[in-house]
Amino acid sequence: MTTLFDRISESFQRQRLLATLGAKLRHVADGEVDIELAGSHAIQQQHGFVHAGAIAMIADSACGYACLTRMPENSAVLSVEFKINMLAPVIGKRFVAKGRVVRVGRTIGVATCEVVAYSKEEQETLVALMQATMMRVEPRNGVSG
Amino acid sequence: MTTLFDRISESFQRQRLLATLGAKLRHVADGEVDIELAGSHAIQQQHGFVHAGAIAMIADSACGYACLTRMPENSAVLSVEFKINMLAPVIGKRFVAKGRVVRVGRTIGVATCEVVAYSKEEQETLVALMQATMMRVEPRNGVSG
Amino acid sequence: MTTLFDRISESFQRQRLLATLGAKLRHVADGEVDIELAGSHAIQQQHGFVHAGAIAMIADSACGYACLTRMPENSAVLSVEFKINMLAPVIGKRFVAKGRVVRVGRTIGVATCEVVAYSKEEQETLVALMQATMMRVEPRNGVSG
Amino acid sequence: MTTLFDRISESFQRQRLLATLGAKLRHVADGEVDIELAGSHAIQQQHGFVHAGAIAMIADSACGYACLTRMPENSAVLSVEFKINMLAPVIGKRFVAKGRVVRVGRTIGVATCEVVAYSKEEQETLVALMQATMMRVEPRNGVSG
Repeated sequence: MTTLFDRISESFQRQRLLATLGAKLRHVADGEVDIELAGSHAIQQQHGFVHAGAIAMIADSACGYACLTRMPENSAVLSVEFKINMLAPVIGKRFVAKGRVVRVGRTIGVATCEVVAYSKEEQETLVALMQATMMRVEPRNGVSG
Repeated sequence: MTTLFDRISESFQRQRLLATLGAKLRHVADGEVDIELAGSHAIQQQHGFVHAGAIAMIADSACGYACLTRMPENSAVLSVEFKINMLAPVIGKRFVAKGRVVRVGRTIGVATCEVVAYSKEEQETLVALMQATMMRVEPRNGVSG
Repeated sequence: MTTLFDRISESFQRQRLLATLGAKLRHVADGEVDIELAGSHAIQQQHGFVHAGAIAMIADSACGYACLTRMPENSAVLSVEFKINMLAPVIGKRFVAKGRVVRVGRTIGVATCEVVAYSKEEQETLVALMQATMMRVEPRNGVSG
Repeated sequence: MTTLFDRISESFQRQRLLATLGAKLRHVADGEVDIELAGSHAIQQQHGFVHAGAIAMIADSACGYACLTRMPENSAVLSVEFKINMLAPVIGKRFVAKGRVVRVGRTIGVATCEVVAYSKEEQETLVALMQATMMRVEPRNGVSG
């Protein structure tokens, strides 16, 4: 039997950008997906803080996959748009993007994502908040999972 | 004499995430910054298209630097928030994010960014549109440029 | 023959909120719709400036109708989401929201809208910028035009 | 003694657009403000559903006032930008916008707002979700409260 985790994980493995930056799938449940990214020089912006683009990447993926857990099995999901507020410039040892479904309809899904930074001492800081719109597409033209 | 290009370039060099993914500063003028990213497996999402996060990264940086060209020389710029619409799923040989200032005030700047994909045959596709809010910060606490 | 203006105008007449606040349809062309709102005490916020909600209302409608001009004749359009930056707190004698299509696909449309304020002396100020996502729906369940 | 409710209410009374459409302040607490709007023909769009602009108006105000509860007493608040997803087209007997602070810093505040529609039978529908950025301004140039 394919679990929900396996289904999302199978697609996640094919996300080259996430692999390039070392992101990991940490949690999958109905309407919920967490993705973790290790802090490193590789994802910094010019001031030594984590780059908004790296945070947006894991938050966007967490929102998309959270919506996918509520879509029919043969669906694929594409980002229509997202909006993200950067709440605090941090360095961070690791970052966890927690995508949660707000509503998934027949075509359109909406999710939010809190991104939490953890320091070496495991102290939490809310670093970003995303609100995203996703679209279900039929698996065609090479778009699957 | 330090040109506007030198000033932005000096900060751009310190953006590790941009270096990690191979982004290049292509154009700097008053209120305008273009950043280019080569298409590659490394920045794909699960369907083989460019990942929204990679596009958001160059667009966010282009918006921030476009605003920085209109701020006093000793300023640093941080992303307050941005919103991006993904307009077409494409593969693309290269991507150019064209950040343009809408308005820069004393503290807050607003910019938009079109991201254009170029195919091997140099055919253009508008792949994304961003609207971003930036904040000027005094260069302190290690935040400079 | 029904012109594009007539088609949009017919729907516009049924917008009670726009009528309530006295908004007027000023311009319709392929991918373009302008809506005007007179400045008045009725649309102010607590500081005497125009309320962001009134500006959002005409901008949202201008974006939706701009997309509708590019959709099949029997379509209806609904707002999926929009994002708006308020660029300057102004009083204004009148406001014009200029909705312009970025791209309209089979289901999803994206438009931007500049809102310009005009003073008594007809001096222009760019007061807001919107980026919006619209959805085409089939005219059913009482949703038409 | 001036309570938090009194302080927000005093500013709310001066919001002409809210009065024009009949919005009412329903709840004020630390980081929380609820605003209610009665459903009526006056706030409909062309399909008889509530207009996104009316929903955005109460959500924007709820976010702004929620942030104001966390700012120094002599502060005024202005909308920098907001993004709103419309989740379901509804008619609704009344609408309640529930603004909640995410984070308020020295200059910038971020809040989210759920807008719930209630039917005649008091059945709830989540009709919209907003994520907004607010700015604290010193009470000058006639900007107060």
